[in-house]
Amino acid sequence: MAVPNEFDCLRVVLVAARNPLNIGAAARAMSNFGFRHLRVVNPYEAAFREARSAVGASALLASAEEYKTLAEAVADCTLVVGTTAVRHRELQHPLRRLEYGARLLREQLGSNRAALLFGSEKFGLSNSALSHCHWLIRIPTCEENISMNLGQAVAVCLYELVRGGKAACQTEKAERATAGELERITTALLEAMRSSGYLDRRPIADVEERMRRLVRRLNLPARDAVVWLGILRQIVWKLRSGKPPAE
Amino acid sequence: MAVPNEFDCLRVVLVAARNPLNIGAAARAMSNFGFRHLRVVNPYEAAFREARSAVGASALLASAEEYKTLAEAVADCTLVVGTTAVRHRELQHPLRRLEYGARLLREQLGSNRAALLFGSEKFGLSNSALSHCHWLIRIPTCEENISMNLGQAVAVCLYELVRGGKAACQTEKAERATAGELERITTALLEAMRSSGYLDRRPIADVEERMRRLVRRLNLPARDAVVWLGILRQIVWKLRSGKPPAE
Repeated sequence: MAVPNEFDCLRVVLVAARNPLNIGAAARAMSNFGFRHLRVVNPYEAAFREARSAVGASALLASAEEYKTLAEAVADCTLVVGTTAVRHRELQHPLRRLEYGARLLREQLGSNRAALLFGSEKFGLSNSALSHCHWLIRIPTCEENISMNLGQAVAVCLYELVRGGKAACQTEKAERATAGELERITTALLEAMRSSGYLDRRPIADVEERMRRLVRRLNLPARDAVVWLGILRQIVWKLRSGKPPAE
Repeated sequence: MAVPNEFDCLRVVLVAARNPLNIGAAARAMSNFGFRHLRVVNPYEAAFREARSAVGASALLASAEEYKTLAEAVADCTLVVGTTAVRHRELQHPLRRLEYGARLLREQLGSNRAALLFGSEKFGLSNSALSHCHWLIRIPTCEENISMNLGQAVAVCLYELVRGGKAACQTEKAERATAGELERITTALLEAMRSSGYLDRRPIADVEERMRRLVRRLNLPARDAVVWLGILRQIVWKLRSGKPPAE
């Protein structure tokens, strides 16, 4: 199989992985299916070190990028897709079966940089991590045992991305806002909510995550994001009675 | 996902697996996708023992069946499908991409018991093991790194079997010969070739494997297999000048 160029637009992101074998297995599956860019967020440090130094560890693993926070790891991506085995959790996100979700993701890859997130072995993606996602992919596992091994989940998802062959969709697409831009908007929005006293009157549980999702659901084009950020920062500045807004 | 009954007709067969983690991973993927019957052929004994006694090892693993030879492990199956990453080896078998091969396999599962074979971590399926197969499935990996981890290969193949949903094909199918019947035919054929002096005049390298494949390519219905076996045994009996043929 020749590797389509658009696969270079995908970042596979392991969030809080705990087992060096799983990190290695994820890298191996990426190599099998032609994906090159691995990012790890806050891994168990010894695990990451061990995975990298393992016999037969790939160049891919050696060049994996490490981040302290998920926000930093996806900052340059315009689409962030999470993976989950869960069906009935109160998800605030569109949940798409792998077959369909992979097709949507592939259609984006030609023109945008995207991230595909995998959570930790034990807990999957946390609510906080999920709040960074535009939407979620579900692998169709059995009810009796929905939880997949991390390395196997990565393999199955990447296989599905590869399966349909090259992305045929070349429809015109507006450039989307990056996750970094969306996060700046979220930050400004939260600041505006706090500074405005909104949150004192209507306290919201998990407010950061809720607002983060709210912003992602806007599905902002890049040029609109600039406008929104400008507006919000202006509001914050004003709310703080002329004190300059935090960057 | 509800588990379709036809999945109970599949035997996942690990041939000469060497790593307990991989045996465990194969079992976990089976459980994820609703397959129940694991068979292991000549595993590294300590590996199989360790996999079975591992924390969290499944009931599926506990009930896995162990065989000394592949012939015994597939004797009750009417279809034997091997998996390989190789493209250009001189394969004597039809080689089908996973998407298509899984569909064919699924269509058989309703009415027949089938085996899906995975080779050892290092070498895949040997030529001898391949000779037991009716045809082969290839996972579409990249040329740069075609060789998948065993547990991941099992996960991807089973996912593809599950992916299309329930087998919709309910076309009438003749009952096929079991691998046991085909092996008896092969044995009789070889004996006939030897006893007839054929092999002295035209020595054939790897004759057992070649003949085994030859017989599989016949794609015999069960009722024809009985006839063929009767004929061959009669021939052998005659060639041995009236000495009764070996069972």
